[in-house]
This record gives sequence, C-alpha cells and structure tokens, in this order.
Amino acid sequence: MASEGTTKVYPVQRLEAFIKSALVAVGLPEQDAAVCAIRMIEADLRGVDTHGIFRLPHYSQRIRVNGINLRPNVRTVRENAVTALVDGDNAMGHVVMTYATDLAIRKAAASGLAWVGTCNGNHAGAGAVYSTMPLAHDMVGMYMTVANANHMAPWGGLELILGTNPISFAIPAGDEPPVVLDMATTVTSYGKVKLAAQKGESIPVGWMIDRKGQPLTDPKRSSEGFLLPIGDYKGYGLNVIIGMLAGVLNGAAFGRNVVDFNKDLASPNNSGHMILAMRVDNFQPVEAFKREMDRVIREIRESKRMEGRDRIWLPGEMEHYRVRERLAKGIPLAPAVVEELRKLADSLNLSDRLD
Amino acid sequence: MASEGTTKVYPVQRLEAFIKSALVAVGLPEQDAAVCAIRMIEADLRGVDTHGIFRLPHYSQRIRVNGINLRPNVRTVRENAVTALVDGDNAMGHVVMTYATDLAIRKAAASGLAWVGTCNGNHAGAGAVYSTMPLAHDMVGMYMTVANANHMAPWGGLELILGTNPISFAIPAGDEPPVVLDMATTVTSYGKVKLAAQKGESIPVGWMIDRKGQPLTDPKRSSEGFLLPIGDYKGYGLNVIIGMLAGVLNGAAFGRNVVDFNKDLASPNNSGHMILAMRVDNFQPVEAFKREMDRVIREIRESKRMEGRDRIWLPGEMEHYRVRERLAKGIPLAPAVVEELRKLADSLNLSDRLD
Repeated sequence: MASEGTTKVYPVQRLEAFIKSALVAVGLPEQDAAVCAIRMIEADLRGVDTHGIFRLPHYSQRIRVNGINLRPNVRTVRENAVTALVDGDNAMGHVVMTYATDLAIRKAAASGLAWVGTCNGNHAGAGAVYSTMPLAHDMVGMYMTVANANHMAPWGGLELILGTNPISFAIPAGDEPPVVLDMATTVTSYGKVKLAAQKGESIPVGWMIDRKGQPLTDPKRSSEGFLLPIGDYKGYGLNVIIGMLAGVLNGAAFGRNVVDFNKDLASPNNSGHMILAMRVDNFQPVEAFKREMDRVIREIRESKRMEGRDRIWLPGEMEHYRVRERLAKGIPLAPAVVEELRKLADSLNLSDRLD
Repeated sequence: MASEGTTKVYPVQRLEAFIKSALVAVGLPEQDAAVCAIRMIEADLRGVDTHGIFRLPHYSQRIRVNGINLRPNVRTVRENAVTALVDGDNAMGHVVMTYATDLAIRKAAASGLAWVGTCNGNHAGAGAVYSTMPLAHDMVGMYMTVANANHMAPWGGLELILGTNPISFAIPAGDEPPVVLDMATTVTSYGKVKLAAQKGESIPVGWMIDRKGQPLTDPKRSSEGFLLPIGDYKGYGLNVIIGMLAGVLNGAAFGRNVVDFNKDLASPNNSGHMILAMRVDNFQPVEAFKREMDRVIREIRESKRMEGRDRIWLPGEMEHYRVRERLAKGIPLAPAVVEELRKLADSLNLSDRLD
C-alpha cells in the first residue's frame, strides 16, 4: 500500500525545485513555474499541508488537459488609485494572486489603502500566503476567495451551491509573530477531508452531514454529503458575503457556476479572489503600533489557562514557529503524498523522484 | 412582576421621540439626541431588540454619572484621501460612528474606497446600522468593533479578556433586499443573554460555559462564565483580529483595558470601531452588478430545501422584511423593557410614559 511507510522530510529547496521542474515539464513558463513553486512551498512551510505540494498532481493534470492558460495575459482591466480589477486570463491562480497582491501593496504604499479583486483566476493555494505579503511593508492584509468546488448547502438547504469560501487577515507585530488568521467558513476544509481519505482516517462528527442531515464520518463518502458552516447560520452568512465580495463583485464564479475543479479538469474556473492592503501608519506611528500589538499579544498569551492547557496560542503563531522549524529542518511529506509525487515525476521523466 | 403582561406595539415616531426627549432631558444637545434616536430605532426596526431602545436606560445612567462627554469635539485627527482616524472625544457612540461613516462614504464617493477608524468612542448600537449606510450610495460596507465588556476567554484560556467583537458587511442588490450580515464572533451576544435573564428564560447549551468548562444555562449566572466563540478556535481568531483592527489600530481599548460598561458607568470606554465603504463601480457597472446579485440571491433562495424548512433566507433578508413590517405596524416592546423605560420616564419627568 502506498500509504504505508514513514513520513520523510525534504529540504525546502528540493521541494521547491521539484515543483518548478514539474510545472515546467507540463508547459508552464519558467518564471510562472517559479512563482507557483514559491507560493505552494509557503503553504507547506506554514503547515497548510492540504494547500501546498499536495496539490501539484492535480494542478499538473489540469494543465495537461488545457484547463490552465500557459501563456496568459494577466492584466489590470479597471483601475483607480486605490482599487483594481485584475483579469487573470485563466493563468495559474498563484500567478494571478501574486500579480494582484503586488499591485495592492504598490497602491497602498502610495495611497495608504488598496483593494484589488481578480476574475478568471484559479485555485491559488493558502489564503495566508497572500494576506501576509503586505506585512513586510508594515501593512495589514485581508484576503477572501470563492472556493473551487461546492461542498456546502445554504443554511436550511440541500443543494451544494456554496464552497468553503475562506477569509484571511494578517496584522504586523513587533518582536512577536504577526497575527495571522486563515480560515474556511466551514468547520473544516475539503482539503482536510481529502487528506483524511488519503490517509484512511475517519473524520469527526460535526465536519460533514449527509443529505438527510445525519453525521458523515467516512471521508471516502464525502461526495454524499456536505460540509457544515462555523456557527451555523453565522458561518453560512459569512460564506455568502465572501462569495459576493470575491466572486460577484469581480465578475467571477459564485454559486452554481462554480466549476468543481476536482471533477472537471478542463473548464475554466473563473475563480475570484480579493486582497486588501493597508498601511498601519494611516492610524498610528508604526513603532508605537507594533509595541502595542506586542503588549496585547503577550497579555492574551500569558492570561490564565484552562486546566490541562499548556499554552494559549495567538492566531497564526503556531504557523509562524512551523515556518521557522521547516525552514531549518525541512518539510515532512506523508507517504501517500510522496507516492503521488513519484507517479507524477515518473510520468514527466523528472530527474528527482523524491527517493 | 414587571415581566408580566402582553407585548405592546408602539409607532416608530413615538419611540424615536421618546428616546430623543430622554436623551435631551439627561443633557445631550438636541442634534446629538436626534442622531442617537435615529440610530437606536434603526436597530429596533431590524429586530435587533438588544441594541436599540432597550439600551436607553443604561445609556442614560452613563450620562447621569458623567460617563459620556455631552459637549464633545468629535474630530478627524489623522487623514488622507482614503483613510481617517476619528477621535470621538467620549461622545455617544452613535454620534461618533455617524460622523465616521459619513466621512467614509464621502471619501469613498471621491476615491472609490475608504477605511475610517475611531477611538475614544462608546457603544454605538447595532453594527448593521453603520455597515448599511453606504448601500444608498451603491457601496459595500464593512464594520467591526470591540465590544464594551469582556465575556469571553482566549481559546484554551479562562480569563475574560475578549468581548463578543462583532463584524458586519452590507452589499447592495437590485430588486432583491441587500445582503447584510451582522454577527458577533461569539455563538450569541451578551445582549441576548441579558434579555433572556430579563424575560426569566434559560439559555441553550453551547452559548456559555462556566470557568470549569461546564455548560451554563441560567442567564442570571452569566457573570460566573463566558460566551463561546463560533467555530471554536476559528471564532476566537476572528475575534482577536477584529479587536486589533477596530481597537489596537485606532489606539482604542482591547483586552484588559476594555471597561465593562455594565459594571463601570463612569470611566471613559475608549471604544474602537472601524467602517469601510467601497463603490461597487470600481469593479462592475452598478446596474450589471445589481442584476448579478439578484440572480445569485434568487439561486440561493430557490435552491432545494431540507425537509421541514419552508424557506431559505439570505443574510439580512429577514431583517429587511422586519424593517418594512415595523415601519408599517410599529415596534413591539416586551413588558419588562416598557417597565424600565417607564421608570426612566418618571425619573426624567417625561410627558410620554409609553402607557
């Protein structure tokens, strides 16, 4: 069985090179492949194992059946000083969102604030990869996207016309790690369900229900049910808002016109995303703001804990330390993931088989 | 018992006039009292009964012990074309947030997008009252605030250093009602717990736990426990992000320095809020956007329902119809609320006792 064996740890550069050569082998221009490799490895570094190299076989398949435009003209189609609509021309999502986020940061650097939306994009990996890009410029980041498959029903409904629609925020701090939230509006992401299926594990009650409203715990039966929103009708509401701000506002897909990228590899996704960047010095001197962030972060972390808890974590703190650890020690890959990547390497005649 | 008797329905104008005369009687300038009355009644119209006239006795008490600045200099202290920091000078929160939202709308009208933060404010009622103000200008609205009392602990913690920190979004539609979300990041708001206590009802399991992690269902014991976040650690994360963007970024209170406005009536709250306004025509022609919103709204509403459900609601749709109904038929007030308002009327020698 492919899923037997022990988890192997790979150096970051090796995996980044692996992704790049695979994407070049399927036809991506070298520069775009490099951007995708960086963005995907950033997800793996944060520990978002479902949104990094794990997706490479799927992305490669899409490219092979012409589901992705390999020579796209990613461009700004509407623009003013503080907003822009970017047409991704069906490029790899990571390429579109890197373009859009760079643009948002440039506009926010000049004007203090910017909101950039994208249409005709694709799955771009982990939201925090983009929401955190403004941090280096002493900016806060906010990111939303319409998920690339519908695994949830409206509140009280049965039809799978909503995705996990995630939202991500990033706020700079001083000596402390930045505060970074990256969450699906469903109790879990479909990626985690897929990973559990791949690992042969069951999923907890509360993640999914079937069409009769009964708990669904076998991830291999996931197509028979749907994910539950956080906070019931509240998460449903937030999910719809994200779909409208990242999808409808950008002329991107939301609702029934979302292409299930797991089932349909060839049709353009018209995936919609938004990124906001804002300088903190609009409101406070940067150093004073960071000092106060540090103080508040420590106040929360050092507050009294429940019995049995050995630490209170700030949002994104665990991921911050994971990045540090994985940069030093490498990225662990589950045997089943390595197996899939080896199959891909074989089919593309890559020199590195991750042995 | 004050809580006996039947619910009475009052015309909107009568309640608005009642609020205004009460606030003038405790010393608010006529114009500020009028603004507060409008904003409070807007909450009641939406059915957010915990955030409208229900709060009048509490607001009045704060004013009587000098907890509110009656002659404030609400002013913009930092500003560029698309952002501003407003110092509320400890004015009534409704006055500060009306100033801030008007400013955000003016800036967004000129530049396409604006984010305005406030410090030194106070409780401003229901978030949707402000997030929906940009709608009339074909803009989306986003609002966040730090709650005025801490009823929640960090995830894994025991100390009440977090509030219900709500977030609200509003998106215009065409013939359909606008899509409006207004939610606390806790499973419920403390206002609903207070209302249950006042009505003598118990609260459901899942709303609150006590300091040992056990369910707390008697709202009269609410001071012995804390509210639970939606989606566990996700709601905790969103709660902290809101606290930092509405609080820390504006130099406003967040964490231990939040004044519990239920227990301490006199100390300035330094309540922080933020409002974002953005023109939809940055991204799509207004009419095309509204048509597509209508289409998506109908797609969701008309999708297949679970057995026993007679309708799928969009976020804010129920409130939209409630506004229409209450404008026509009046606002129902629970007997206990009327009793409190009568006591207030007596103590202020108001001509209307709501008899």
